[in-house]
Parts: sequence; structure tokens; C-alpha cells
Amino acid sequence: MDLNSKPIAFVIFGATGDLAKKRIFPALFKLYTQNLLPTQIKVICAARTVYTSESFQDYVYENLKIENRAAFDDFAKTIEYLPIDVAEDKNLKDVTAAISKFEKEVDACPQTIYYMSIAPDIFSSAIENLGAEGLNISCSVHNSKPRIIIEKPFGSSLESALTLKLLLEKYFDEEQIYRIDHYLGKETVQNIFAFRFGNEIFEPTWSNEYIDHIQIITSESIGVEKRGEFYDRAGALRDITQNHLLQLLSIITMEEPKGFNPKDINERKLAVLKDVKTLSPEEVAQSTVRGQYEGYLQEEKINPKSQTETYALVKLEVDNPRWRGVPIYMRTGKKLMGKVTSIIVQFKDTRHKLFGDLDMKPTPNHIILQIQPNEGIGIRLVAKKPGLETTIEPVDMEFCYKNTFDEPQPEAYERLIMDVVQGDQSLFISQEVIEQCWRIIDPIKDAWSSNKVPLATYKPGTWGPTEADELLKHDKRDWLTPFLTICKI
Amino acid sequence: MDLNSKPIAFVIFGATGDLAKKRIFPALFKLYTQNLLPTQIKVICAARTVYTSESFQDYVYENLKIENRAAFDDFAKTIEYLPIDVAEDKNLKDVTAAISKFEKEVDACPQTIYYMSIAPDIFSSAIENLGAEGLNISCSVHNSKPRIIIEKPFGSSLESALTLKLLLEKYFDEEQIYRIDHYLGKETVQNIFAFRFGNEIFEPTWSNEYIDHIQIITSESIGVEKRGEFYDRAGALRDITQNHLLQLLSIITMEEPKGFNPKDINERKLAVLKDVKTLSPEEVAQSTVRGQYEGYLQEEKINPKSQTETYALVKLEVDNPRWRGVPIYMRTGKKLMGKVTSIIVQFKDTRHKLFGDLDMKPTPNHIILQIQPNEGIGIRLVAKKPGLETTIEPVDMEFCYKNTFDEPQPEAYERLIMDVVQGDQSLFISQEVIEQCWRIIDPIKDAWSSNKVPLATYKPGTWGPTEADELLKHDKRDWLTPFLTICKI
Repeated sequence: MDLNSKPIAFVIFGATGDLAKKRIFPALFKLYTQNLLPTQIKVICAARTVYTSESFQDYVYENLKIENRAAFDDFAKTIEYLPIDVAEDKNLKDVTAAISKFEKEVDACPQTIYYMSIAPDIFSSAIENLGAEGLNISCSVHNSKPRIIIEKPFGSSLESALTLKLLLEKYFDEEQIYRIDHYLGKETVQNIFAFRFGNEIFEPTWSNEYIDHIQIITSESIGVEKRGEFYDRAGALRDITQNHLLQLLSIITMEEPKGFNPKDINERKLAVLKDVKTLSPEEVAQSTVRGQYEGYLQEEKINPKSQTETYALVKLEVDNPRWRGVPIYMRTGKKLMGKVTSIIVQFKDTRHKLFGDLDMKPTPNHIILQIQPNEGIGIRLVAKKPGLETTIEPVDMEFCYKNTFDEPQPEAYERLIMDVVQGDQSLFISQEVIEQCWRIIDPIKDAWSSNKVPLATYKPGTWGPTEADELLKHDKRDWLTPFLTICKI
Repeated sequence: MDLNSKPIAFVIFGATGDLAKKRIFPALFKLYTQNLLPTQIKVICAARTVYTSESFQDYVYENLKIENRAAFDDFAKTIEYLPIDVAEDKNLKDVTAAISKFEKEVDACPQTIYYMSIAPDIFSSAIENLGAEGLNISCSVHNSKPRIIIEKPFGSSLESALTLKLLLEKYFDEEQIYRIDHYLGKETVQNIFAFRFGNEIFEPTWSNEYIDHIQIITSESIGVEKRGEFYDRAGALRDITQNHLLQLLSIITMEEPKGFNPKDINERKLAVLKDVKTLSPEEVAQSTVRGQYEGYLQEEKINPKSQTETYALVKLEVDNPRWRGVPIYMRTGKKLMGKVTSIIVQFKDTRHKLFGDLDMKPTPNHIILQIQPNEGIGIRLVAKKPGLETTIEPVDMEFCYKNTFDEPQPEAYERLIMDVVQGDQSLFISQEVIEQCWRIIDPIKDAWSSNKVPLATYKPGTWGPTEADELLKHDKRDWLTPFLTICKI
């Protein structure tokens, strides 16, 4: 990072919220202490609670849970607090004033970044107020447009996503908007790019000619916890499948981008998502399972008659020459047996005809790209078992980030904030991608809402409803993820 | 093994020699104690030295270096010693008598196996004498033809190999002849079959479309030791390249056999060897390096003006659609830096164009099939280095036999003897294959003998002559093996 690069005015709306506390400030502090931010930075923090800049700095310090106050003090100087209600347009002018003041201090036009760390229900009014205040316009000297960071949910359907788009478009161009899906900041997801496009040996097999199917899972062992109010309205499909799982799907199946830049990568992601088949109501009934864990209805702030799913299995197909015929099973759920996010690519078991007379079980190869816990890559091969008999057995090879690299892995938010500062949109989601995701998800949600797929239940601590196992069994396949763990500690 | 299977008369000619002492008896004893041989077996041991069966059993016991005599005694009963000179046809009738006696004891026609553990210079007369004695004919009751095991060298040129063939053909059919190349008994060489034909994910890349070149090495750290007399006549090219290295070449490049049986496997091996280009004298000069370690001329029983090579580098090409344009560098030598046998398949570095603007060194993938020491498979990938920068770095994955399987690996000779007993020729070398190997090697030997390639020298403890490094450098490639070790202890 060129420390003499452009000054940054980093404005956090919702600076007293959970996300700011848990993610944004720790990331900013770490980047700052590692000299990965421009030396000229002002962190303008806006929220309704009344703080002075000093008392807010103390609040940030306490939340950072670091022992050395001296290390913090230098960073603290960059923090300015403004009691502002962006939704109600109270004191929003103070932000303009603070930016102007900073502009004078550094005698240059700073790059302004707005981090919209606010609740979805006040999002529209906040954007309108930003626009009314002219905060979407850069300082007059240079043409350096403000950047705006927004967090999911990006709507709750294709229709609402389009409404959101129209709103944002009034004030911001697509190139100014950074939509965070924090899964995409993870090292291993980026490593998928390196794995797929930096290695010669896998891409030739990366198609329906060699691949039998793909499983993508992101499971949690916890329940809804304190997110009941939001979660009961969203459900697993919209909370996880629509964004995280479809993002992973697009990265694992996309064509090689022309260059390693946001535009080319997004183009490929978008193209493959466009190829994902839209399910008819009948296909939804055959290709999906929705489930709710036992005890969900008794959770805090959950409608006692809620039909919201806490588990979603969706089988999709990318309908293009490379992927046609390869089912992609995506599942997610709460209160499952373990917390894991991984992609398993299972190959066809076609090469064993040579060993067919040896009376052996099929042992197809697979490649695991594990995202958490313990990020790494696993390859399952077969090898000859030592001994006088000719017997082949599965063996595993693995590469684990932790064992290989000494460098600590940066937190997702460090990477993402860094990218916004540098104007790199490659890990962020474009509006077009969001629209495609909703195009895929909406028909499933609709069929589920109209009860075309019964709501299954499952016991906490299992891998989900038995209906999901039956769907796989019907396809003559087995779940792989929960029984495989690579890079065990 | 069906212990009630056919009785075996296992006749060892040259039973007092080094090979019998170090390899054959340990293997037989181990197979016997593991109940992997038929219960009805007679080990008829023939050599010139005068022993009784009892004193020879003691000699075998001492050489086995086992502590428990009781464990040996049961095996000892199978051993009968006959003082015989097979080359001079002295007492050869005693073998016939011993087999007949065994036949009566077991009241069945035994499967006779002759192990010709004798010096190459008496081989012809031994075969003629066996034939004259009618030992090539099976007992009259059943049509179970004797099997004959012979060790390399299988001639010293195409011409002498054909002479040997004509001699053997007088008395034995090809299906009776088991030509041992003990490298082929090693687990990992067999594992190459499992690796190539049991896994779906590598074969699609196994061609000139994806592979840049192949390196095959078998190096020794020792010198000629006590083999001076034989070695100075043979040299590295005929001692190692002609057999071990070309065998490895054929296994790594062959097409998939139709079945896992000797006939189909040999057919494929033969086919790919036939496709190896014959080098013209000019090509020999460009594609080979011969070397002699400093101090070789002072070794025991070496001609002080010897021009024999102790190092051979040969670059070959398999001229078929799959392999055309992929150089295969095969090298072997004595007194090199370490003892290693491995095959490295290096892929083309074509997929990095995406990362080209990131200013990174080329890091092509490669696959290592390591045969010794510490047998295993290694894959070199690239992965993203953790951190905010996008940097890709090579990382290694490995599968090691020792860490994965608890079972001890059987010695090569156990496997090979077992295969002869069961009549499985798949790990043995056919006459046609030997002829192809000489067809490839003879022009190189001829060019070397006529000094078209100067004899380079190298210092003991290095990786050979600098001329070899220069040959690679000229091809814009680097040696890989010595700098890579997988499955380190």
C-alpha cells in the first residue's frame, strides 16, 4: 500500500451497531497498525447514540479487547464521532462539515467511503437522505466519486432487489457500490481462483465429462440465537442459499475470466448464473427439501406457527455445455451436527473398469475445497494397498493453509475494506448477479410458500431432515461432507 | 492363496550365490511362513559346492539371520541340496530324480519352476544341458509346463538378445519364461497402474496437450563396489537405462490396457516402446550425455583405460499422438549425491496468463511418483498465499505409503516369486519388449563407442556431469528430482 496515496474519509453509518463493533473496527485497527491504510485517514462515525469523539474512542478501545492502549491511541486520533440519525436526516450536515474539514486539513480531495452498517428497514430513507444532503457528490476539485459499502440482504426477492436498485441508481453508479458478502473475503474462496486458474492439472477434468456432481454445504451448529426477528422473516433459503451458496456455485463453475480484474470476473460469474436453470413448481417439489429444527417454534421472537425453514436443500443444474447433467446439491441449515463450509467435487467412477474383475467397491475421486473450519484442499485418490493382493483403496492427500503458510490469514473484513480503499470490486457482488440469484431463488420460495413442498422437521444435532437423504438416495448418491474432514487440528 | 493348490518343485540353480542368499531364500521363507505358498513344496537347490541337504539348510538358516530356529525348521524340511554343475552337465540327472521322487510323494504332477540364478557366461550351456536332460518337459500325466525364471542381463545388444531368444525357444515357450526386472516388483511401480488407471482425475491431462516433459531418475550414491568386472563391460546405459528406466518409461506412457492381465499389459507396454523414436548418430550427440565419476579408473577390477560410463542421460521421445513433442529425460548414475528412483511429470505452465499481470515466476504443476526411498506420490500445486496481496505460491501435497497403510510392503522378490507360482506374467518382461529396448539403446551405445559423444567426468557426490545440466538448460528446463523429496522420514 502506498502510504502517500489519496486521503480517505471513511464514514460509518451505524457505528454503534454489532457489525461495526465486531467486524469493522477490528479490521480498520488491524489494517491501520499494519500500515495498510493511507496515513491520511479520518474515520467519521455516525449513529443515534450520544457520544463525544473521546468517549466513542474509549468505547471502540474497550470493544477491541487489546491490552496496549498506547498502540490504540494513534488510531484513536483518526476517529471522530457525530451523533446523527441518517434515517431521520438529523444532523447529516455534520458529516459534510467533517469531510470538508478533513479536506482542508489534508489539502486534498479525500476519497470518501460510506459504510452503511444499518438495519435493512431504514436503508431506503438513509440513501434518500444521503442524496438530499449531496453526500453522493465528490468534492469539486477532483472527480473522485464516493464509494458506498452495503451489506446483505440485497432485497428479499427479485422485485424488491429491483426497487433497491432503482433507489441506489438515483445517487450512485454501479462502480461506486460495494456489496459485501463476507464469505467472499475468506482466503479459501479466493484460493478457489488460484486453484482453478493457477493449476494446469484440474481444469481439463472440470466438466460434465469427468464430474459426477457437486455438493456445497454451509452448516451451523447454533440455532437462530438473537436473530429470531429477522431470521423468521427470511429463512435459510434467502439468508444463505440466495447469496453465499450461489456465490460459491458461481465461482466453482464459472469459465476462466479473461483477466484477474473485477469486470472480467463478474462477467464470468454472471454468465454462469444466467445458465442456472429456473425450476418449475414441479421441479421444486422434486429437487428441494425444506426443514425446520425441532424446538424452533419455541425460540425467542419466532412466530409460534412459523413455517420458516431453518434448513434448505436445493438441487440445481447449470445448463451449459460444460455442466449440463451435473447436479449441484446446495444445502444449509442451523442446529446441524457441525459447523462446516465446503465444496466437494465428485468425479465419475468410470476408470475402474480395468479393476472391475477385482471385485472392489466404487471409489470415485473427489476434490474438497474446505472453507471452514481449517481451510484447505483435499484430494481423494485410490492407491494400491501394499501386499501381494492387488487391492485398491482410497487415500487422501491434503494441503492445509495453516500447516503450509506461517502468515496469519487476514480476516474477511480486512481484505474487503482494503479492496474498497483500493477500488477493487472483484470480491463484491454486482447488481446483475443479485438479480440472477433472485431469479433462481424466487420460484423455489414461491413453491415453498404455497406449500408445494412440505416442511420437514429434523432433530437438532443431526445433518438435517431424512427427506434430504432420501433425495440423494433417489439420485443414487450419498452425502459426502459431514463424513469427511480435512486439515483436522 | 489356496494352500491345497498344485504342488511346487522349485529348483534353484546357483543356490549358493549372492542372489539366492540375499533375495530368493528370504523371500521363499517369508512366503512360506505366511502360508502364501502351497503346503506341498520342494525347494531343490543345485550348485557346485558340496553340501548335504542338512548342512545347506544350516547355511540358509545362518544367512536368513533369524533368531528362532524352530520357525525355520518346518521350512528347512522343504529344502533338498544337490551338488550339481548345470553348466558342465554334472549330475543333472539328480534333479530329474528329485522331482520324480517328489512327484511320487505328493502323488501328483508338481508345477516345476527353475530359477536360473547363475552367471550370464554359463547361461547358454546351462539351458542346453537342461534341454538335453529333458527338464523342459513336464511330467507325463498332466500338461503343466515347467516355468523358468531368468534374471537380467537379457543380452547386451539386440543381436545377442536374439541369440538368447533362439536358445530359449528351443526348449521353452514364451509363456513359460519369467524375466525378472526386480524394480517392477516394487509396490510403487504397481501403484503407477493404480494411480493412472484407478483415478479419474489425472488421465485426462496425461498427454502432450498438458504435459511439458517427464524426468525419470534412478541414482545411486555407491560406486561399482565389487561388481567391477561385470560393470566395466556393461556400463550404466546397459545396466540400468536399457531395462529399469525403459520399463518405467513404458508404464508411465502406455495406453490403458484392456484388462489387468499379463497379455493386455504387455501389449500396451510393447506398443509404446515401439513408438519410442530411434536416435540417429547426430541425435545421440544432441540428446545424450555419458559420464564417468572421478576415481572410477582406480576401482577394483576396472580397466585403467576404461571408457565405460557410470552416468547416462538419455532424452527420448514417444512418437505417437499422445506424446509427440514431450521429451522424456532418463538419467542414472553411480556415486551421485543421493539414492533415489522417481518419475516426475511436469505440466505446462499455460494457465498462468490470468495471473500474468501479477509478476510471478512460473510455477508449473508436477506430479512425483517416488519409488525409493519412502515410496509415495506428490503433487505440486499453486495456492494463494494468505494475505492481502494476491500472490500464488507452490504448495505440495503428498501421499506416503508408510503413513497411510499399516501393512508392511512385501519385498520385490516375494511378490515376483508369488507371481511365478501363480503363473502371472504381468510384472515380467516379454522377449518382444526386450528387443524393443535394445532397438532403442543400441544406436546410443554404438555412437558412444565410436566416440561421437565425449565421455564427460563428474565428481563423486554431485548430480553428475555439468554437460547434463547444460543439455537441460539448452532445452530451457531444469532438473527437478534431487531438489524435491517427498515423504521425508
